[in-house]
Amino acid sequence: MIPNLQTIEIAHERIRPYIHRTPVLTCQTLNQLSGATVYFKCENFQKIGAFKARGGVNAVLSLLEQERQAGRLMGPVVTHSSGNHAQAIAYAASLVGTKAYIVMPHNAPQVKKDAVRGYGAEVIECVPTLEARESTVAEVAAKTGATMLHPFDDYRVIAGQATAAKELIEDYGGFDVVMAPVGGGGLLSGTALSVHYLCPTAQTIGAEPEGAADAVLSFRTGKIEKAPFINTIADGLLTNLGHKTLPIIRQHVSDILLVNDPEIVAAMRLIWERMKIIIEPSCAVPFAALLRNKDTFAGKKVGIILTGGNVDLGKLPF
Amino acid sequence: MIPNLQTIEIAHERIRPYIHRTPVLTCQTLNQLSGATVYFKCENFQKIGAFKARGGVNAVLSLLEQERQAGRLMGPVVTHSSGNHAQAIAYAASLVGTKAYIVMPHNAPQVKKDAVRGYGAEVIECVPTLEARESTVAEVAAKTGATMLHPFDDYRVIAGQATAAKELIEDYGGFDVVMAPVGGGGLLSGTALSVHYLCPTAQTIGAEPEGAADAVLSFRTGKIEKAPFINTIADGLLTNLGHKTLPIIRQHVSDILLVNDPEIVAAMRLIWERMKIIIEPSCAVPFAALLRNKDTFAGKKVGIILTGGNVDLGKLPF
Repeated sequence: MIPNLQTIEIAHERIRPYIHRTPVLTCQTLNQLSGATVYFKCENFQKIGAFKARGGVNAVLSLLEQERQAGRLMGPVVTHSSGNHAQAIAYAASLVGTKAYIVMPHNAPQVKKDAVRGYGAEVIECVPTLEARESTVAEVAAKTGATMLHPFDDYRVIAGQATAAKELIEDYGGFDVVMAPVGGGGLLSGTALSVHYLCPTAQTIGAEPEGAADAVLSFRTGKIEKAPFINTIADGLLTNLGHKTLPIIRQHVSDILLVNDPEIVAAMRLIWERMKIIIEPSCAVPFAALLRNKDTFAGKKVGIILTGGNVDLGKLPF
Repeated sequence: MIPNLQTIEIAHERIRPYIHRTPVLTCQTLNQLSGATVYFKCENFQKIGAFKARGGVNAVLSLLEQERQAGRLMGPVVTHSSGNHAQAIAYAASLVGTKAYIVMPHNAPQVKKDAVRGYGAEVIECVPTLEARESTVAEVAAKTGATMLHPFDDYRVIAGQATAAKELIEDYGGFDVVMAPVGGGGLLSGTALSVHYLCPTAQTIGAEPEGAADAVLSFRTGKIEKAPFINTIADGLLTNLGHKTLPIIRQHVSDILLVNDPEIVAAMRLIWERMKIIIEPSCAVPFAALLRNKDTFAGKKVGIILTGGNVDLGKLPF
């Protein structure tokens, strides 16, 4: 069932001890530059360096409650991810002392594999295709009885991600627009729900790279579309929408804006240089979209979820 | 007169509308790694990107008050700096609508000259030697009647810099140690005074690069010494102590610790990667000193002033 306000509130209470209530930053220079008043919700300061800790912890703790209520012991969990969801599930599993199997493409950065292992999870490598990832997860689940936790197409995950916008609205209310990037749509759908329940006069607007322009198509057609091509630095946003995230986004999101990679890198650099904080390329996409569409946002109070700060300092685009 | 507690409190009231009360961040991973509990006072988020805004604003506003009391109009100000002090004075002068002349070496980065001009100050270029900088300042002062504002050897500047540690102690009190880097000693002497007045059981410890090891010598001998050699990435810490900063440091600082450049870069990278914030190399020196001397700090509650975040992203050491 699509999370209602109470579900999101319960999720927030459930995960509160294990996540940071991240700060919200503003920057006069960026306000002048953009013509809007922007409140940046700093999920780059979140546990594991990204908002995904919220959804991951809510999913694992919800599963634990469900198993307890059924009189069962919590079993292992399994997922596939090359990025922040891997760390989120590894972190969440470590909190409840359960085993996590994380299927990762063998070419994932060593530092990410190490981070996952650092939480005590077991990394299982596979060929870097979606098919291989899904079949490996199925094998692990069959062999170990582990429960699969989907990175975004799961209402427990969506409710967890919704808590970022909930905090932003609680702390700084009265927004005209709240923006989030869109990959699989877990964050965007959760954000749209919190805005709908808690700040209903505000619009939720998604932002997506031109080099992974699937969500904008799905948003128009109502079907899960693939991007015409994949070529972007925003490597956290390559995924297609899911059957649970798409309907929420179609119902509660006003628009999805596109930006190109030079715009993403320029926005990322502005935030690094002016705000002195480290964000991932994927994270710069909404602010890039705001800068590209200044007229749309002129004079408005805009909340932006800064999604994460896990970058490889050895491979910077500037 | 060496700032007393009241002087620092008045300075704080004076500058409060024009500076940020910067956040204090902690990081579990860095606590585990260091064995201490570290509170980072984020002056990299300060106006102009560095703590120098505090001293600069206090100096300019104090001068304004003095001139008003004497029934005079505020005249122009002049200083020399290749770095954050230049922006601090330009920013402070813009607040009171007075003209600022900033003498800068002609090889200073264009971005820094532009930033100074962005505040409406006039940049006057000179040969990159201390002699040329000082003689150019003298010429400008003679020609324009501008008042020279020293970057650190000025009690108004010292009282301004002291407000960073004052805020840190007010917000998180009960420290065992408070650390700051040392160049000319404006920040370190101000920090030591605030610790002495507001958290007298704590030690103040300075940190300095091996490649600019003058303060540690001056601290021992009681005379203003020069470094045996200059070669460090921490380019904000090359200056020698002054006649006003040295006695305060000798009286109220417990020790000055040295670190080498690889240690500085490693500490900087750790803070970037783990805390997701951007700091200058000079800014990483105290945390590098803590990591080098883990036994000394084990189990202690340590405050560290993160001094600034103005880095050239095109010239990173990693």
